[in-house]
Amino acid sequence: LPTVADLTNLVVVMVRPRNPLNIGAAARAMSNFGVHCLRVVNPYAVAFREARSAVGASELLRNAEEFTSVAAAVSDCLLVLGTTAARNRTLQNTLRQLDLRSSGTIHKQLRSGRVAILFGSEKIGLTNDDFSHCHWLLKIPTRETNVSMNLGQAVAVCLYELARAPEAKSATARNTTAKNKEKVDRATVGVNEQITTTLLEALRHSGYVKPGTESACEKKVRRLVLRFNLEKMDAEVLLGMARQIVWRMRQHTPKS
Amino acid sequence: LPTVADLTNLVVVMVRPRNPLNIGAAARAMSNFGVHCLRVVNPYAVAFREARSAVGASELLRNAEEFTSVAAAVSDCLLVLGTTAARNRTLQNTLRQLDLRSSGTIHKQLRSGRVAILFGSEKIGLTNDDFSHCHWLLKIPTRETNVSMNLGQAVAVCLYELARAPEAKSATARNTTAKNKEKVDRATVGVNEQITTTLLEALRHSGYVKPGTESACEKKVRRLVLRFNLEKMDAEVLLGMARQIVWRMRQHTPKS
Repeated sequence: LPTVADLTNLVVVMVRPRNPLNIGAAARAMSNFGVHCLRVVNPYAVAFREARSAVGASELLRNAEEFTSVAAAVSDCLLVLGTTAARNRTLQNTLRQLDLRSSGTIHKQLRSGRVAILFGSEKIGLTNDDFSHCHWLLKIPTRETNVSMNLGQAVAVCLYELARAPEAKSATARNTTAKNKEKVDRATVGVNEQITTTLLEALRHSGYVKPGTESACEKKVRRLVLRFNLEKMDAEVLLGMARQIVWRMRQHTPKS
Repeated sequence: LPTVADLTNLVVVMVRPRNPLNIGAAARAMSNFGVHCLRVVNPYAVAFREARSAVGASELLRNAEEFTSVAAAVSDCLLVLGTTAARNRTLQNTLRQLDLRSSGTIHKQLRSGRVAILFGSEKIGLTNDDFSHCHWLLKIPTRETNVSMNLGQAVAVCLYELARAPEAKSATARNTTAKNKEKVDRATVGVNEQITTTLLEALRHSGYVKPGTESACEKKVRRLVLRFNLEKMDAEVLLGMARQIVWRMRQHTPKS
C-alpha cells in the first residue's frame, strides 16, 4: 500500500477551541496522518490542559504552542488557509472546495515552506478577522441541509485529504505544472503582516482611516497585501519603503 | 461547487460501540454527507440511549435500528465492507485502501442496491467473526506509527471519501467500465448467509465439522460463499439444493 504524503511543513492552528475532546481528537488525527505541529490561539485554559490524553498523540500535545493572536501563530508560514462551512456568510476571501485540486495547490507550497490551516471554535468557527489572515478558504463538501461538521472530524477529513497518497495527485498536478514551473521564494505571512501594520500606520497618519473604520480598514489592508502574493525580495523592498514613509509621517504629525 | 454523491443506499453499521459520543459523532458525519441509514449491533444500552444529541442528526439517531447480530444487520445488502487498521493481524479477507478506486467500486454496487460499511468497537475494532461477514476490508491510509483512528473520525473520513463529488471519480471509473459492462443482479448477503447456514448444517451432519472447530468452520464457509459472488438466480438454486441435502441428512441422522 502506498505511504502517506509528507506533511512535515503543515501547521494546524486551532483558534479559540473550547472542548478538550476536540483538541485531543485533532491531535490524534494529526498523529494518524503525520502532522506534527499544533498551534493553539487563545484556547480556554481548562480545555487546553485537559486535552493531554489523545491516543498516541501525547507528545504532540505537549509540544503544542500557544499564541495570543492569529497573526503570531502564522507569521512563519508561506500560505494560510481558513476552514469554513461557508453558511450564511458573505465571504471576501476566495472559497475553494477540499479536493484533489486544492490539495495539490497546498502541496506545491508545502514543498517550499510552512502552510497553516486554521480551524475555528466549535460554536462560531473563524471570524471575519481571522479570515483576513487567510490567503483563501477551504470548505469540506457537505450537504446543504447540515453543512457544519464536528471540529475533530473536520480536522481528520482535511488531513486525510492532504495525506492522500501522492500518486493519486499526480494526474491532477500534471495539468497545473506548466504554468507554475519557475520556483519562486514567496514572503512569509509574518513579513506580509509587518507590511500591513506599517501601511496601516501610514494610512492612519494620512487621514485615510476614518474614525470608527479602524478595524475594517485593517482587514482590508491585510487582504490586499496577501493578494500581492509577494516574492521574498519584493516584500523586503516594500517593507523598507513603507517604514521609510511612516518614519517621515511621524515627524510631521503633532504629538498628542 | 459540485454536489456530493448519492449515498442513499449506504448503510453504516456500528458493531458494539461503547461511547455515546462516538455514536453521536458518526450520526453527525452521516448527516453531513447524506447517509441516512444507521444500524447498531449490540451497543452498550447506555451508550445508545445517550447518543441522542448529535448536532443536526437527532432524527437519524431516532431512526437507527438495533440488531443482535452482524448477519441480521447486513442481510438486505449486496456488499459488506469491514473497516480495519490492519495492525498485528493476519487477515483472511482482501484488504483495500480507502481511495478513489475502492470508492469507485463501492459506488458501482450502490447503484444496484444496499452496501453496508462496518465499524467495530473503540477498543478492539471488528473481530475475525465480524470479518467473515465482509466481502472485503477497507483501511484508511494512516501512518505506521499510529494507525488506529478515533471511531467518529474514521466514520467521517470514510463518508467524506464516498461522498466525494462524482466527477472526481469519473476518470478512475472509466478504466474499469469495459470489463463490468454487463449489469448482473447479485444475491443479497441475507441469501448468502442462508446458504452458509444450510451448508454448515450439511457439513455438521456429514461429520466434516470436527468437535471444537465449529466456529472456525462457520467463518470458513461464510467466506467461501461470499467469494462465490453469486448471481441472484444462482443463489436461489444453490440454496434450494443445500436445503434439500439437509432435509435428507436429517432423516438419516439419529436423534440425540
